[in-house]
Amino acid sequence: MKKQEKGKRYTNRANIWLGMMTKDIMQEMAKTGFNGKRLGEARYIYKKMLEDKNCVKIMSAAGALVAAGMRNIFVKAITNGLVDVFVATGGSILTHDLIEAFGIRHEQGTDKIDDVKLMKKGIDRIHDVLLPNKGYVIVEQELRKILPLLPQERMAPSTFLRHLGKHIKDENSIIRACYEKNVPIFCPSITDSILGFQLWMYSQHHDLRVDSQLDIKEFLDLTWKKKHYGLIVLGGGVPKHFVAGMLPVTGNTLNYAIQITSDVPQFGGLSGATLQEAKSWGKVAPDALITDIICDATIAFPLLISSLL
Amino acid sequence: MKKQEKGKRYTNRANIWLGMMTKDIMQEMAKTGFNGKRLGEARYIYKKMLEDKNCVKIMSAAGALVAAGMRNIFVKAITNGLVDVFVATGGSILTHDLIEAFGIRHEQGTDKIDDVKLMKKGIDRIHDVLLPNKGYVIVEQELRKILPLLPQERMAPSTFLRHLGKHIKDENSIIRACYEKNVPIFCPSITDSILGFQLWMYSQHHDLRVDSQLDIKEFLDLTWKKKHYGLIVLGGGVPKHFVAGMLPVTGNTLNYAIQITSDVPQFGGLSGATLQEAKSWGKVAPDALITDIICDATIAFPLLISSLL
Amino acid sequence: MKKQEKGKRYTNRANIWLGMMTKDIMQEMAKTGFNGKRLGEARYIYKKMLEDKNCVKIMSAAGALVAAGMRNIFVKAITNGLVDVFVATGGSILTHDLIEAFGIRHEQGTDKIDDVKLMKKGIDRIHDVLLPNKGYVIVEQELRKILPLLPQERMAPSTFLRHLGKHIKDENSIIRACYEKNVPIFCPSITDSILGFQLWMYSQHHDLRVDSQLDIKEFLDLTWKKKHYGLIVLGGGVPKHFVAGMLPVTGNTLNYAIQITSDVPQFGGLSGATLQEAKSWGKVAPDALITDIICDATIAFPLLISSLL
Amino acid sequence: MKKQEKGKRYTNRANIWLGMMTKDIMQEMAKTGFNGKRLGEARYIYKKMLEDKNCVKIMSAAGALVAAGMRNIFVKAITNGLVDVFVATGGSILTHDLIEAFGIRHEQGTDKIDDVKLMKKGIDRIHDVLLPNKGYVIVEQELRKILPLLPQERMAPSTFLRHLGKHIKDENSIIRACYEKNVPIFCPSITDSILGFQLWMYSQHHDLRVDSQLDIKEFLDLTWKKKHYGLIVLGGGVPKHFVAGMLPVTGNTLNYAIQITSDVPQFGGLSGATLQEAKSWGKVAPDALITDIICDATIAFPLLISSLL
Repeated sequence: MKKQEKGKRYTNRANIWLGMMTKDIMQEMAKTGFNGKRLGEARYIYKKMLEDKNCVKIMSAAGALVAAGMRNIFVKAITNGLVDVFVATGGSILTHDLIEAFGIRHEQGTDKIDDVKLMKKGIDRIHDVLLPNKGYVIVEQELRKILPLLPQERMAPSTFLRHLGKHIKDENSIIRACYEKNVPIFCPSITDSILGFQLWMYSQHHDLRVDSQLDIKEFLDLTWKKKHYGLIVLGGGVPKHFVAGMLPVTGNTLNYAIQITSDVPQFGGLSGATLQEAKSWGKVAPDALITDIICDATIAFPLLISSLL
Repeated sequence: MKKQEKGKRYTNRANIWLGMMTKDIMQEMAKTGFNGKRLGEARYIYKKMLEDKNCVKIMSAAGALVAAGMRNIFVKAITNGLVDVFVATGGSILTHDLIEAFGIRHEQGTDKIDDVKLMKKGIDRIHDVLLPNKGYVIVEQELRKILPLLPQERMAPSTFLRHLGKHIKDENSIIRACYEKNVPIFCPSITDSILGFQLWMYSQHHDLRVDSQLDIKEFLDLTWKKKHYGLIVLGGGVPKHFVAGMLPVTGNTLNYAIQITSDVPQFGGLSGATLQEAKSWGKVAPDALITDIICDATIAFPLLISSLL
Repeated sequence: MKKQEKGKRYTNRANIWLGMMTKDIMQEMAKTGFNGKRLGEARYIYKKMLEDKNCVKIMSAAGALVAAGMRNIFVKAITNGLVDVFVATGGSILTHDLIEAFGIRHEQGTDKIDDVKLMKKGIDRIHDVLLPNKGYVIVEQELRKILPLLPQERMAPSTFLRHLGKHIKDENSIIRACYEKNVPIFCPSITDSILGFQLWMYSQHHDLRVDSQLDIKEFLDLTWKKKHYGLIVLGGGVPKHFVAGMLPVTGNTLNYAIQITSDVPQFGGLSGATLQEAKSWGKVAPDALITDIICDATIAFPLLISSLL
Repeated sequence: MKKQEKGKRYTNRANIWLGMMTKDIMQEMAKTGFNGKRLGEARYIYKKMLEDKNCVKIMSAAGALVAAGMRNIFVKAITNGLVDVFVATGGSILTHDLIEAFGIRHEQGTDKIDDVKLMKKGIDRIHDVLLPNKGYVIVEQELRKILPLLPQERMAPSTFLRHLGKHIKDENSIIRACYEKNVPIFCPSITDSILGFQLWMYSQHHDLRVDSQLDIKEFLDLTWKKKHYGLIVLGGGVPKHFVAGMLPVTGNTLNYAIQITSDVPQFGGLSGATLQEAKSWGKVAPDALITDIICDATIAFPLLISSLL
């Protein structure tokens, strides 16, 4: 991040003012230290990705970000051209998107609550967010209507999700937004979700089935062309690992990378591993523009995206 | 954990002495507060699981625990009957087990090191552990010898891993230990690993292929019988989510659960979600014995297992 | 936070748009979950404090926030009437404010750097912020000019800091801003700082000396009147502990409290202890408006203050 | 830690066995990665300190370790000659030690509890530890008996604590153990504690008063002699900052340092700052033996001390 900082090497120049816009505060944060500085850098790096016409922008998402109310932020990012490829978990991102698409809402709650009572009332807790369990019933009901309309064949999760997107009516759906903007969605761990489970149930008596292994080919096909690649990691997990692991197969590396996570590198897990460490693996280019922000994505993600619109 | 604490309700009775054994210190920790207390409770809960002849003991593992030197601890846990079912990630647990099984060692290093230089030397960094990249080449070479010996058909990851275990010669291998002790290994996210990638490569010209969705049936088959279930979570991720999500499908819940993670619940992600929260989902029984320990598994896991031998 | 949420109980209504201001995004965050929601609540609670004419607004600060570039944010908060009483550590807040006031700047750097080389160059590192060690020399030189101008007597840290503020010329100084706005600064741990050390050195041959114990009387004198009290905690530590511990002595409790910290409650330390826990101690009123945000203050603090100007 | 690792550079040699002692598991952990390795290194470094007859061993403690049941561990460390100088917070360490010394016990509890109800019952919560509030009343009562027996003069906290230790009868008291072993206790932030508050109350009508600034002289007097210095940090805070800040004044630096904390460096605070970073400040010698363990002290501290008896 040398270039950005030229002539601005002092902290304590960061300022605030009345009527400040989110892009302003991101610029000011870039003049500070610690994670504030890194969040400011993230906007700078994302802008570089957007200016680089040769750059494929991949967003990976894990964690209960839809439950926590980030759904519209994803949709805005997708519809505004900030995302070319989306990689997500099947549960917390895609199944929860479907739950909302089919009319069940995640509700603000608290973590100071009796979980056994919640269970008896049919309410699932995700830290301080509450979800009526019937959301999963409705996902099952609606999928049973939609699945017969899809090609009855073995297909990659990404292929399935594109077909599914066609049949989602909710304009605030991430899956639909990706379909409309022709953004492929990869979900290599779809088996580990209610969506994957429903597909398995359906496959007991039908020929439509998803095969995660086919997403490898789909992803490689996207990346055979030598291009620049940029990754925005939200939360880590399988989506981060898959992108960073598959890109080198086609001789590519990440030229830009932004990581927003609540995990830290000191415990050795992938979600907390720094983007710097990924250089040793050849997953990130030696001269890539990178920054890792340790921050709840419910704060950093809307701030970052709103500052780029 | 009421029962355990009866008559020992005061902290500050914890003591230490010369020649103390690991089981002693776990008993003393149970008299304290915070995570020390919880680690002490974990031993008590694990012992209850072992005494309950009707209990299926499931261990889920995510994170770079093999790289960090926990391989022998896993093997000891498996060979000593502490694990009935093993659920793991394809990369950090299974591929790294294969790398070691095929003769490449993870080395002690440091995170204060130039990652670009490492990359040029062909060394991958996992926080302060270093791995020669040729480990992945050798996995490819060895799999190319073993895969033709396996049934050339579509199979679940758990089926594949049982077949693979037969052909691993290293006695310190987790995959081999599971095979020998008839402990099934589930890996619903196998696609997201070099092992999964090599299987995909091989499947381009052969009929052997893994299909993650088939692990759903295999796991459900194991759990149709109404039994007690106990879960030891190491690190969270897909393995935790899969077990806790699939058990309720067969009308079961967890009666015992121990979670060792470095994540916290305040960011809403699954890896940090408390076992208490899982009660709202019906994944954990209302009266289950549970404890969550926030601690690096490289400390808590060997301590726990050694105290139970 | 019931009142705020009425009629807005669903997450996933949070939105972003072009030209969004920081107060807009804080309002949108309040509609989400996890720490984003809590940061949105913080703005709401701070506004309530500002509307409550009977409320004494206390800000406590610990951690290297001045090094990280938050100095102007503090000054804006003070000069805009958001702070009535300031409680700080002697090192990271007050000494670093003096270093900047006397012309030495904290610089943006990196934590990937050789610390022994830095030491040889006379540069101190604070994570990714660098500080020329001569900053401490200049603090000593300047204090030797100012101290003789002050009353040569035993005094509380708060009294000393008020006198000191008169002699600081830098308009961006926190200590000066407090003096000008008549905001008392408490520093019960002033001994543990270079400022405290220089005062001790001076006291070897002069009668001016600070006595931390006298700050108890000064603080109690401020709070004998029955009023409402609001606390904004940045980082925890002694400043948080002192305010929350001393208020009950005069029969008061906190009616409003906002905590921005990177620590979590699971390790039992005070900096991570929830404001909810403080209710058991009688430090926070049963019906107080409270929220704890786990976030780097370099992100949350400028966002919060800018949204309130 | 080069020397220790010679010939043991591979992880995955760590083993466990039946009847394993705590010193065995620490030796095995030293062969792993991440925080397990670091905890193993800590024992090695502590042993080096003990072998170095020229080394002054300083232990700094912050955080609610007495509440969490670590009191006996401290006492064992002190009585076994593992500590030459003790530096602590006035509240969580020293006041809580007095509470126990005067007969009130910290009790095992839970954090899932109604804090307002606790307050009404007179019970203070420290995460999952409960303390009857009358503990503070008894401290007041007992101090009123003891304080008149002490020299009625201005004194350093360390001097006061030595006098106080003489009058504590409880053999499990940290303050008494330090008195008996002639281990000075420094408490530069004594003002921020109930102990400090009671001293202030008493000083309203008596000549006995503590003056934190005098601890500077007492500490410097201890360290004028050029020696080796070793520091064991538990939790960080003022005690860590004071030791590391004052040692360079007398031309000394730390030659050995072990840090056990739950904080991480990425947020820039002192408690999480690495010992490596302290080399840039000249607080830690370039060639010092150092290790930072991120772990709840309720796990790492009893393990470390028990392995050294």
